[in-house]
Amino acid sequence: MTAKLITLLTDFGLEDPYVGVMKGVLLRECPEAQLIDLTHAIAAGDCVAAGFWLERVFSWFPAGTVHLVVVDPGVGTARQALLLAAHGHYFVGPDNGILSGLMASDVKAELRAIDGARLGLALPSRTFHGRDLFAPVAARIAHGSLQCAQVGPLCEARSAPLVPRPNQSAAGWSGQILVVDRFGNLISNLVAPPARESFEIQIAGRTLPIVQTYGEGAKSQLVALVGSFGTLEVAQRDGHAARALGVDVGTPLELVRRSG
Amino acid sequence: MTAKLITLLTDFGLEDPYVGVMKGVLLRECPEAQLIDLTHAIAAGDCVAAGFWLERVFSWFPAGTVHLVVVDPGVGTARQALLLAAHGHYFVGPDNGILSGLMASDVKAELRAIDGARLGLALPSRTFHGRDLFAPVAARIAHGSLQCAQVGPLCEARSAPLVPRPNQSAAGWSGQILVVDRFGNLISNLVAPPARESFEIQIAGRTLPIVQTYGEGAKSQLVALVGSFGTLEVAQRDGHAARALGVDVGTPLELVRRSG
Amino acid sequence: MTAKLITLLTDFGLEDPYVGVMKGVLLRECPEAQLIDLTHAIAAGDCVAAGFWLERVFSWFPAGTVHLVVVDPGVGTARQALLLAAHGHYFVGPDNGILSGLMASDVKAELRAIDGARLGLALPSRTFHGRDLFAPVAARIAHGSLQCAQVGPLCEARSAPLVPRPNQSAAGWSGQILVVDRFGNLISNLVAPPARESFEIQIAGRTLPIVQTYGEGAKSQLVALVGSFGTLEVAQRDGHAARALGVDVGTPLELVRRSG
Repeated sequence: MTAKLITLLTDFGLEDPYVGVMKGVLLRECPEAQLIDLTHAIAAGDCVAAGFWLERVFSWFPAGTVHLVVVDPGVGTARQALLLAAHGHYFVGPDNGILSGLMASDVKAELRAIDGARLGLALPSRTFHGRDLFAPVAARIAHGSLQCAQVGPLCEARSAPLVPRPNQSAAGWSGQILVVDRFGNLISNLVAPPARESFEIQIAGRTLPIVQTYGEGAKSQLVALVGSFGTLEVAQRDGHAARALGVDVGTPLELVRRSG
Repeated sequence: MTAKLITLLTDFGLEDPYVGVMKGVLLRECPEAQLIDLTHAIAAGDCVAAGFWLERVFSWFPAGTVHLVVVDPGVGTARQALLLAAHGHYFVGPDNGILSGLMASDVKAELRAIDGARLGLALPSRTFHGRDLFAPVAARIAHGSLQCAQVGPLCEARSAPLVPRPNQSAAGWSGQILVVDRFGNLISNLVAPPARESFEIQIAGRTLPIVQTYGEGAKSQLVALVGSFGTLEVAQRDGHAARALGVDVGTPLELVRRSG
Repeated sequence: MTAKLITLLTDFGLEDPYVGVMKGVLLRECPEAQLIDLTHAIAAGDCVAAGFWLERVFSWFPAGTVHLVVVDPGVGTARQALLLAAHGHYFVGPDNGILSGLMASDVKAELRAIDGARLGLALPSRTFHGRDLFAPVAARIAHGSLQCAQVGPLCEARSAPLVPRPNQSAAGWSGQILVVDRFGNLISNLVAPPARESFEIQIAGRTLPIVQTYGEGAKSQLVALVGSFGTLEVAQRDGHAARALGVDVGTPLELVRRSG
């Protein structure tokens, strides 16, 4: 038995029934789908955070999963609507850079511009393409009733990848904080070095050791560690690192070799 | 294959396990049900917002869907418990006006007073009829093990519809803001006019054009547009209209013909 | 048809995709599972609240349900990972006291220390055992592909039960507030007395009657009542009891016989 999985990643919030209505459409088109919320709490229009999380988490789902991504500040304008087949998964969402990094990292990726008219998808609203365009396509792909090639013509992404990559610096690597999670952990785009004991992190004028887990430091100690999705993050034992350091998304940090 | 869909609309929030327990009861009675959260973030006891959203969104679900609506400030008092069959859907909830508008708009609607004792539904609690009364009825209707006529006697709704309707005014139509969504959009009860270019919106001393989509205005411009559920709303490009105008739920607005 | 139910109780919040990823792993291992969120809004590391709710709600789910509980401030340290079979249900989570009360209340309970290596569960991360260890075990138990005895050796819980029990006092019973729910209701660990009319509650210098339901008091009146999970709570009609009394979690309260 194969589950027909569809994940949802939006900035809709859960205060209003927008997500629920989109799920109604998904189940109308694919009644046997299993729907998984990645999160709906992306800050309104924050395509960088959406892209970061999507790249980091998609591979935890089985091959063939359909990822529906609706962070879409340009809804109703001329931006393209995309279906991306890459890394053995499907991704459906607007052409605003969120999917571009996943496309660039798979040479066999196939990108198509969704042709709503050809699919018989009327657009009753200019403001809710998640419901009217993206959800039906995602559900039909999951259901198997629609093949990639039927969705629309092959195309190029018009938006460049949004998630900033780390840069090699004189002392090591420089990156930045991309997400502050619920626990106040500062999650960066720096990939973990092979021998963490030989490195340390510099951020906001502080130098932090790279430990193995949250519980390792002394109470209230600030530490760096390899987060659960493979990038370096800064945490405070029993505390909230973002508040302790007074920093937020966008703050630069450096990965450097330990002196001595 | 037909999905057995049950939607949930409550003011329980997601901080406590009340929704989860209600879902446990739903799946105990109808293990094959698909459960969809509309929202659980209705302000405590806000029956107007619950009724507005329910009327606006139910038709996006397949015919036969069961909608479980538990915004119930009068729980445990003598208010009736209702099953409404209308518009090809089922609605289960308390008699406090939330379902009355849906009843009034379908001449073939069938309304029944749930008779818990007849259904063998003990009420261990006077404070959680969502779990003890409404959920079992909703699940059995979805499951097909209970027919409408078995639920209880035909009845009249004792509470009038809550969602205010727009009024014709000298200049056009007057309505009010019913919901402020997560993006700060002000959603009204005014239905979109057929030729939007010929109309404009007056609210809080401002006159706003009716555009097609959020991205159409200049940055920070306040505009009106037809929202995704067919009523007029006020939005600010890349901003938060409620804060920009300093208005909230209940604010009146006017739909008038453009001068000149 | 038996549903394979897995409930989730965590302090992960819904702002980040941690819960979604854990669900991806659950459905990878048990594609036919039905997943129910109890709540993900437990305050970070609040094992008392998690334990209280778990003990109060598990019995509303069918026998055989698997409850996945990840409130785990000690993740990555030497604390044990547990599978508890008790009261006809399964519980999976860290050894920090959350499961200890459920174990103590069932003489036939079986507690096992999860042996990840034996189960072939690599731990790519030292910070996310919910995803890497607890979710696979929970899903395999639900799926039936793993039996209790295969999970690891029988063991003793190293952490004592966390949820404080009420104490008999000279005047009656003394307890404390364990949870403030979304409505501001103060939920205590005091069990309801058999004849509520003969008792009253003392809290924060006030004496409150024990009524039957929220709607019974006069507007703004503070009352006590038996909550929907069987313990006494303090509520304010159309108000927020916690703010009205200026109290929070940990506040003591007394159940005493009414004078006269």
